[in-house]
Amino acid sequence: MRVRHKPWAADEVRANPEVVIADPAAYKGKWHSDIFKNNNPIHLELGTGKGQFVCGMAKLHPDINYIGVELQTSVIALALKKVQEADVTNLKLLNQNVVDLHKFFEAGECERIYLNFSDPWPKKKHEKRRLTYRSFLDIYRQLIGAGQEIHFKTDNRVLFEFSLASFSQYGCILKNISLDLHQSDMEGNVMTEYEEKFSAKGQPIYRSEAILPEMPRAEKQVVDA
Amino acid sequence: MRVRHKPWAADEVRANPEVVIADPAAYKGKWHSDIFKNNNPIHLELGTGKGQFVCGMAKLHPDINYIGVELQTSVIALALKKVQEADVTNLKLLNQNVVDLHKFFEAGECERIYLNFSDPWPKKKHEKRRLTYRSFLDIYRQLIGAGQEIHFKTDNRVLFEFSLASFSQYGCILKNISLDLHQSDMEGNVMTEYEEKFSAKGQPIYRSEAILPEMPRAEKQVVDA
Repeated sequence: MRVRHKPWAADEVRANPEVVIADPAAYKGKWHSDIFKNNNPIHLELGTGKGQFVCGMAKLHPDINYIGVELQTSVIALALKKVQEADVTNLKLLNQNVVDLHKFFEAGECERIYLNFSDPWPKKKHEKRRLTYRSFLDIYRQLIGAGQEIHFKTDNRVLFEFSLASFSQYGCILKNISLDLHQSDMEGNVMTEYEEKFSAKGQPIYRSEAILPEMPRAEKQVVDA
Repeated sequence: MRVRHKPWAADEVRANPEVVIADPAAYKGKWHSDIFKNNNPIHLELGTGKGQFVCGMAKLHPDINYIGVELQTSVIALALKKVQEADVTNLKLLNQNVVDLHKFFEAGECERIYLNFSDPWPKKKHEKRRLTYRSFLDIYRQLIGAGQEIHFKTDNRVLFEFSLASFSQYGCILKNISLDLHQSDMEGNVMTEYEEKFSAKGQPIYRSEAILPEMPRAEKQVVDA
């Protein structure tokens, strides 16, 4: 998400360390006991943007703990406002890079990952930056473990094609695939800001769930994916 | 494909046993030596309809042997005409049911399966009839073997969603997924009659390749697919 730089954003984030957790490494292995003070599952949204999805989910599922991860401070400052307005205790934010998450969580401390409208990085030479590239799947498998699920949605056709193949070639099992989410029978879909805007134009939203494998498949198995 | 009954079709098929192979069980294990008289790979199209795809492929790839399988005699009679006009030696037809193919081919005698615009059987209670249901994948694995590919295209969104999940849950690896084939960079696509008509209206064609696994995954692993 590209947004205008907000000079006030960093101050706002720093001023609310109980929502945008300031020193996440200090809570490694202690998110249940020290942050959420319950044993409910923790679900992460990676690239949480302005926070509408994760706020909506937190309100809808009070028995799940949510953490929205967003690298851009100017963006997470907007999510912070939403969290404050939502007045929920089961939702925290992290102003961090996905590649650093292993520093903040023990293996298996979180149980599900949401990827919503991730940057498509449309150029082939940038495909390693896509959040469904296999090096990221390695990170997710370490975080949430085999048998746990990634829930992915996007409006970008090429990213979705790439991601299904990437999940499959990594060894994930795919389920609940939808090529037009808003025409499907899925219940309880919470829309992101972007999804609302985009689907109002009548364009389809793609969605899939991917179950992480015990072990990833060998990297070189598929040549012409 | 629903077509009007053609009283002349059965006679026409019977009169051309060198194209619509009359007693395929007699050639089990002998398709290379006795029918095609070469050692080129054999590719099957299941549900070959009026034959435009398989004729086009046979002309485009003279080093591959093709067999179009179609259950309906009134339909395969139309494909027969096309084969005769195409004047190719690397293409035969079978007026047979897919579930009987093991009677006609040794394991591994064929190397690839094409499924084009298969009947979507849209009702959930009929999903076992879809040609990408796991019982059919068992048939294909026996026919062409692990590591070989199913090439699948359809215009039916629900069938495509179902099929990707079915392939994945069976243990197939997916590659070359396209959610809008005619906007993709795929080269050498041969269109079926139906595909020409349908895509002319601007609607997307879905396509995927699925590599068959050594062993199928356990059937009950995924509950809510």
